[in-house]
Amino acid sequence: METEGEYCAVHEAIQVLQEKWTMHIVRALLDGSLGFNELGRTVGGCNPATLKARLDRLEELGLLRRTVHSYMPPRTSYELAPAGVALQQVIDAIDAWGREHLPPEAVRPRAPAEAEAASR
Amino acid sequence: METEGEYCAVHEAIQVLQEKWTMHIVRALLDGSLGFNELGRTVGGCNPATLKARLDRLEELGLLRRTVHSYMPPRTSYELAPAGVALQQVIDAIDAWGREHLPPEAVRPRAPAEAEAASR
Repeated sequence: METEGEYCAVHEAIQVLQEKWTMHIVRALLDGSLGFNELGRTVGGCNPATLKARLDRLEELGLLRRTVHSYMPPRTSYELAPAGVALQQVIDAIDAWGREHLPPEAVRPRAPAEAEAASR
Repeated sequence: METEGEYCAVHEAIQVLQEKWTMHIVRALLDGSLGFNELGRTVGGCNPATLKARLDRLEELGLLRRTVHSYMPPRTSYELAPAGVALQQVIDAIDAWGREHLPPEAVRPRAPAEAEAASR
């Protein structure tokens, strides 16, 4: 039997958002509607099968709307539904945290040659 | 050559946070210091090798402190460093979003038998 206590919103939200590429996809779509290939280029590095799987999951969760345009050649565009747009607050919090606590040198330690060049 | 424009804080922050289990680990440690096994139980479902890899990465990024206690048997405890504690704002934003936009029925569609029982 499912009881109210078994559902933890933050746990389930993390489950959704930790899927690799999902937050990058959301961030790209917060700037507006995109076609599949445009979205792939904007996200960068996500293979088409994974991108399709993530978009299907976001649509299933009601975070995304898919529109198939009937002109030729047919084109599919993706845009965030209101529940997806509401992720702006999460992306903003991640952005603020990253700017303050994730300096470039923490993420990508300098190679010795670069460090030497920078110290000149 | 590395220029200022090549570093995007929100992109790098998403890269860190989208690693599977990382946000669950951070959430668990926001409640206080934990030993390795306690942390594994709290996070739930993360195998020890992956947990170790995630903790090592968080330590490398300066988000986590590891303390080895010298009493016998030796025990290692993990706690968030200030940059990790600052992720509270991200977890809070995810929590608020999850509560409002990720209802239980969206995440776990009811099986037909459950739906039938609920409609009685």
